[in-house]
Amino acid sequence: GALGGLGLGLWRRQQQAAMAASEEDGDEEDEEELRRRFMAPPVSGLRELRRRRRELRSRMELLIMETQAEVCRALAALDPGAAFAVDTWERKEGGGGISCVLQDGEVFEKAGVNVSVVFGHLSEEAARQMRSRGKSLKAKDGKLPFCAMGVSSVIHPKNPHVPTMHFNYRYFEIEEADGSKQWWFGGGTDLTPTYLNEEDAVHFHKTLKEACDKHDLKLYPKYKKWCDDYFYIKHRGERRGIGGIFFDDVDSPSKEEVFQFVKSCAKAVVPCYIPIVKRHCHDSFTPEEKLWQQLRRGRYVEFNLVYDRGTKFGLLTPGSRIESILMSLPLTARWEYMHIPPESSKEAEILEVLRNPKDWVH
Amino acid sequence: GALGGLGLGLWRRQQQAAMAASEEDGDEEDEEELRRRFMAPPVSGLRELRRRRRELRSRMELLIMETQAEVCRALAALDPGAAFAVDTWERKEGGGGISCVLQDGEVFEKAGVNVSVVFGHLSEEAARQMRSRGKSLKAKDGKLPFCAMGVSSVIHPKNPHVPTMHFNYRYFEIEEADGSKQWWFGGGTDLTPTYLNEEDAVHFHKTLKEACDKHDLKLYPKYKKWCDDYFYIKHRGERRGIGGIFFDDVDSPSKEEVFQFVKSCAKAVVPCYIPIVKRHCHDSFTPEEKLWQQLRRGRYVEFNLVYDRGTKFGLLTPGSRIESILMSLPLTARWEYMHIPPESSKEAEILEVLRNPKDWVH
Repeated sequence: GALGGLGLGLWRRQQQAAMAASEEDGDEEDEEELRRRFMAPPVSGLRELRRRRRELRSRMELLIMETQAEVCRALAALDPGAAFAVDTWERKEGGGGISCVLQDGEVFEKAGVNVSVVFGHLSEEAARQMRSRGKSLKAKDGKLPFCAMGVSSVIHPKNPHVPTMHFNYRYFEIEEADGSKQWWFGGGTDLTPTYLNEEDAVHFHKTLKEACDKHDLKLYPKYKKWCDDYFYIKHRGERRGIGGIFFDDVDSPSKEEVFQFVKSCAKAVVPCYIPIVKRHCHDSFTPEEKLWQQLRRGRYVEFNLVYDRGTKFGLLTPGSRIESILMSLPLTARWEYMHIPPESSKEAEILEVLRNPKDWVH
Repeated sequence: GALGGLGLGLWRRQQQAAMAASEEDGDEEDEEELRRRFMAPPVSGLRELRRRRRELRSRMELLIMETQAEVCRALAALDPGAAFAVDTWERKEGGGGISCVLQDGEVFEKAGVNVSVVFGHLSEEAARQMRSRGKSLKAKDGKLPFCAMGVSSVIHPKNPHVPTMHFNYRYFEIEEADGSKQWWFGGGTDLTPTYLNEEDAVHFHKTLKEACDKHDLKLYPKYKKWCDDYFYIKHRGERRGIGGIFFDDVDSPSKEEVFQFVKSCAKAVVPCYIPIVKRHCHDSFTPEEKLWQQLRRGRYVEFNLVYDRGTKFGLLTPGSRIESILMSLPLTARWEYMHIPPESSKEAEILEVLRNPKDWVH
């Protein structure tokens, strides 16, 4: 579930102002629509997306582009002195990406929201690795045409009373030798506080549960547990944070139904997180609280570099876009030898919840 | 080559003052000798080491204990306000360790020197993983009696003009089903500067070369290259530092000769590094230089968590002593999105050397 997990292949960097005129979509009406809806022109081009508007991958590309813009705008509104830098990228083998990064703002230490839409051909081995269940796929001449797209984001705020938030929603299609298509969705949204605030935890989980419950009452409990299991820092015996939802390799009940579920989750990101940022971004804090935040940032780095499937897959893929993958790392982190918080401290309180995940809503 | 790579099994922590009376080695003469020579009583006990003084593993245990004390004393002398905390550990299945850590001193941000001496039984699979060449070993009833010991250290100074230094010297013995023993040594010493100082680089490599040349003129060039190859951060296309020497799985020409070589390397640690610390620990530096140091610390974390064999092996081994393994991480680190130093800057100069390793001595 990391940033840039889709960053396959060799990228060419094109730094450009957000909304620079796209050559393909040059007329005024398009310009206006692009400016209103997105951070940059969509990888596939607006006209192409309109032409094949009924296809799921077009609808998904519009959803991830809209989610990127929605989240960036909501964050930027809370940090008026700072602005998102927008980088667009092209992938030589097909597709590209848009990275939006706000660094060293008043409210946010580092906030990144990435979109990538890539296509081309995969080896059977690479295709198998992309599915967590490791299904084998039959290739024609050893190559499988594929399309992978997603939006992924990590938000590290400055104030230790505002939690870090991560989300990622992604879609894959692979065509087998007989022409049949395999497809699946993955994603999740999770919260990593420095200190436990029960009200925030309940609000976050409740908002996610409501998004899930619209589709199937079984989803939230299942994906809440999956999240606690996935974000486990085994060598510490701790979860990275207080969870949320996580799912991978989902291909039932139907493409349309899973898409509607993913859409609900993506639309829940802002209502999940923004009220928590607003509530605490002006809280006062002590140097000791900032220090504890830095130690927890160290754990975030440990999880992402040692365990996260997306990060590992990205780092091991030759030519992948490292800066997008490692955008998930905090601006600063700290490691102290044998740091053990005193019993009954606020630091011990959050550790307890990271060691023994709680149910926040029923 | 990381700290605590030998930290197998479940440890019980015993925080204690250095040189607290050892129950086994209780008489006054022993006390005096312990105090003079070591940071804490040796894991195997001084009397036991004397009794089997001719065995190589006793001589190696004394060498790693002496190296630990020598390095700690040389570092402490440069940082008079700070002191090494000494933790001794026992391993339930056999053996133990001594961790010496100086944190947040005037000169050193974090300096750790670990000794571990562990023994017990290994599975065939675990034994194979311990040898980089992956030799298979024949076990009696599926278990191989083994003994592993080493000293390992990472020194992160505060001043960005003083480089980080790492060293590790280790010895393994495994007994096969037919009673024959396999043994091998590994180790190395390497330097990670924030800024390039050619004089320091030449001094460091020259001192290592002299230690190697006493034994075989082929060793330095071979182990210098191995070091450049090993400390490679593949996803960045950079080495972690400007190298030094690195070797693993060395079992020829003879046990005695390899031991003498390892002894020369261990004795070279202080003359390699201490003059460089002395030369630069009072250099003035700018906030920008401190920031570049923090970004380089981030790369150090990336190497150790993503690639280092010792760290990965340690983290994946259930019950290993995490705090000793992760002592190698810096106190603080930083990641900035798309940080690219200007051409011809001092920051670009060190990057060039990390991308294309140089020969410092001929």
